[in-house]
Amino acid sequence: MPERISVVEKITKANDQLAELNRIRLDENKVFAMNLMASPGAGKTSLIERSLPLLADRFRLGVIEGDLATNLDADRAAAAGATSVQINTGSCHLDAPMVKQGLNELELSELDIVIVENVGNLICPASWDLGTHKSVLIASVPEGDDKPFKYPSMYRGVDMLVINKIDLLPYVSFDMERFKQGVEALNEGVVTFPLSCVTGEGIDAWVGWVAELALEQNS
Amino acid sequence: MPERISVVEKITKANDQLAELNRIRLDENKVFAMNLMASPGAGKTSLIERSLPLLADRFRLGVIEGDLATNLDADRAAAAGATSVQINTGSCHLDAPMVKQGLNELELSELDIVIVENVGNLICPASWDLGTHKSVLIASVPEGDDKPFKYPSMYRGVDMLVINKIDLLPYVSFDMERFKQGVEALNEGVVTFPLSCVTGEGIDAWVGWVAELALEQNS
Repeated sequence: MPERISVVEKITKANDQLAELNRIRLDENKVFAMNLMASPGAGKTSLIERSLPLLADRFRLGVIEGDLATNLDADRAAAAGATSVQINTGSCHLDAPMVKQGLNELELSELDIVIVENVGNLICPASWDLGTHKSVLIASVPEGDDKPFKYPSMYRGVDMLVINKIDLLPYVSFDMERFKQGVEALNEGVVTFPLSCVTGEGIDAWVGWVAELALEQNS
Repeated sequence: MPERISVVEKITKANDQLAELNRIRLDENKVFAMNLMASPGAGKTSLIERSLPLLADRFRLGVIEGDLATNLDADRAAAAGATSVQINTGSCHLDAPMVKQGLNELELSELDIVIVENVGNLICPASWDLGTHKSVLIASVPEGDDKPFKYPSMYRGVDMLVINKIDLLPYVSFDMERFKQGVEALNEGVVTFPLSCVTGEGIDAWVGWVAELALEQNS
């Protein structure tokens, strides 16, 4: 099917060019941006809700919420203190044109950090550069310790890994060693933050990392 | 982009035609087939492992495992007593041609039930008819009660809903009423099985439903 391949290639190339423009625009405005990816229900919005109040005294915060449907997540981000934009993708991932549209709606010159919350999906978002500076994957304990093995493209491509819902470790079968071995095989040395958005355990270390990168970008 | 639309339409139409052929072939062999869909880690393989031993005395069982990567799930299904075939999709969902290939590898005349485990994804599999008789969605309690609202195409299109991991209800914030309201708004009267693959609670009702449909198909 040469026709199909040529169309897909055209779309991907156009996306990557626009992603590069998004990144330049963020850099010009000294805004640090990250792309949060995860399965449905792993805790992307909960992590944003937990993190924003801890960053709000030092940084001006914007959130771009990508969802198949509803404004639920943008409402939660706004309630937690960020300027938020909802994008209903109608499809399985965000792409660079959608993020460009989101950036248009935010006043970048008045922001320091933009968090992009991708659509809940462990497969499709891995293939699309959005123009953010860092890609973050949120795994969660009840999903099981076999996920790195089964979704290698996602685990391989990220800069940072959050392991959420560690408060559920006593109640589920999750072998942290097996999980970490799977991660290491795909993404050696990737920095990992085990944490719980319910108890707050581990949140400070994660927020410290975000703050450090934002300060670097702002300087 | 008229070029893109025409290619997508061609692919979807070819898929649906092949799905119909898969269904005819299953019917000719009096095999009942279902398509299990869910987020990564909601418990598709665990439900198969729990169900097979309860069906094995009355039915001959086959499993087609769709995964982005690895044979882990086919190994688990085989260990639980089914003839199993692994398909590594390399993409975000199974389609009818892949299931046809899986059916080629199973001896249909010697089976009564075929369970197709789709790729872990709450979006893409909803759009692809595989030729199975029933579509089943497995939700899981730790994913959160907002999922019907956020993934409406998946919740709207299924014949049956399993709510897995009810053993975790005491440890997470999950409002069953809110969840059920979301489900009802999209898929009125859909039959629901709350259960736990860990404790076994609720498994009998689910297996009873599968057995009933398989007997109907076999008669």
